[in-house]
Amino acid sequence: MAEAEISTAAVLVIGDEILSGRTKDKNVGYIADRLTEVGIDLKEVRIVSDERAEIVAALNALRERYSYVFTTGGIGPTHDDITADSVAAAFDVPIDVDPRAVDVMLERYERADLTEARLRMARIPEGAELIANPVSKAPGFNIGNVFVMAGVPSIMQAMMDDVVPRLKAGQIVHSVSVEAGMGEGAVAKPLSALQDAFPDVSIGSYPYQRDGKFQTSIVLRSRNAERIEEAAQQFHSILAGIHANKA
Amino acid sequence: MAEAEISTAAVLVIGDEILSGRTKDKNVGYIADRLTEVGIDLKEVRIVSDERAEIVAALNALRERYSYVFTTGGIGPTHDDITADSVAAAFDVPIDVDPRAVDVMLERYERADLTEARLRMARIPEGAELIANPVSKAPGFNIGNVFVMAGVPSIMQAMMDDVVPRLKAGQIVHSVSVEAGMGEGAVAKPLSALQDAFPDVSIGSYPYQRDGKFQTSIVLRSRNAERIEEAAQQFHSILAGIHANKA
Repeated sequence: MAEAEISTAAVLVIGDEILSGRTKDKNVGYIADRLTEVGIDLKEVRIVSDERAEIVAALNALRERYSYVFTTGGIGPTHDDITADSVAAAFDVPIDVDPRAVDVMLERYERADLTEARLRMARIPEGAELIANPVSKAPGFNIGNVFVMAGVPSIMQAMMDDVVPRLKAGQIVHSVSVEAGMGEGAVAKPLSALQDAFPDVSIGSYPYQRDGKFQTSIVLRSRNAERIEEAAQQFHSILAGIHANKA
Repeated sequence: MAEAEISTAAVLVIGDEILSGRTKDKNVGYIADRLTEVGIDLKEVRIVSDERAEIVAALNALRERYSYVFTTGGIGPTHDDITADSVAAAFDVPIDVDPRAVDVMLERYERADLTEARLRMARIPEGAELIANPVSKAPGFNIGNVFVMAGVPSIMQAMMDDVVPRLKAGQIVHSVSVEAGMGEGAVAKPLSALQDAFPDVSIGSYPYQRDGKFQTSIVLRSRNAERIEEAAQQFHSILAGIHANKA
């Protein structure tokens, strides 16, 4: 598969509660994992507040640049849920209560209980397709290359089950992790030479501490599994050389 | 304190490992909490890949718009650590090994162990001030309104201890949470009226599930504690009315 055919993606998290620190986001990591599984490259994430102008500006910047944009948050029934209206504004299309959305909500609510507030959750921009919500019924939607989902993790995750089959999957990125067994500084120079020798393998170096000692995970990523294997073998030789020099 | 004096902030997370899902970000939530404690409003977060053009573009967009920008990630000794050079490029200033940074690194390393790779961590853009790193010595830095910190959470958190006293603290935002004891739909309409009556209090509604039942946390936020108290009292009256109607 040619590089040009690889789908790219962005996530737009909408929520004052993430920016205030009250709620810790768990959706970005989940969506990142799901996209990696189907070979789609997540390239950017933005988190913005519950303000229409902010949502519209970020959405228009991202949907122009990437194959897909996934939004989370702001599609409930309360006054601070302004995502659907903001998406309609970004696409410059009308928005109104959608009979298809009402139908799915009637699977959970009696018609008499579909209050004005709950019907806000059935407001869908013109031309959008619904995204199923098996948890609480109120749907997400897909318009153009934008997928609008709930912010509650259990609901967002269920919605992704409906979304992923609609995406153009790519060749998956293989990934091999190697523990260097030393700090980054000790392995940085040969690692840089290895990266130069394998421009088609992305080599990441991730430092961490364990029991007060600095350690490094090296992660080799590529759509070409054979090249990863070659790079990993060379890296093991490099590590052996460093340990031999120490001994 | 007038609204115009409130400092705003953005976070720029730099790291392929977050976008691939391999690492789950923990820094945004931590920085959000620290800023909230000192009355600075976090307004936007972006996560970008380890690509110079991406970092420069995001940094220039954010530093123009907000009082402060905090970056995390990409300041280690390996080939994929390109944050310092990217920040220098964004500010269009030279970057080189900084004797002050070498001095602090000599607190941990022998001079003979300050290899070319480790000295990469002492490269600081011209005109920047160092940010102390008590964990592993290699410093962060502050240039203009931008604070450049490590991605390893323990190091980033220690750096924030050095950064926060340099920021212009604002009047803190008080916050009161009330459990509605029902789903969002049941409380949405009176809540919207309450928001209209208290334009100076930000009223957020956060749904969640517990034991399979939908619940809602209402969070009232304002720099004016008295107005929060008034709004919270009115909200308790609203809840009492809803429960009385049900009974």
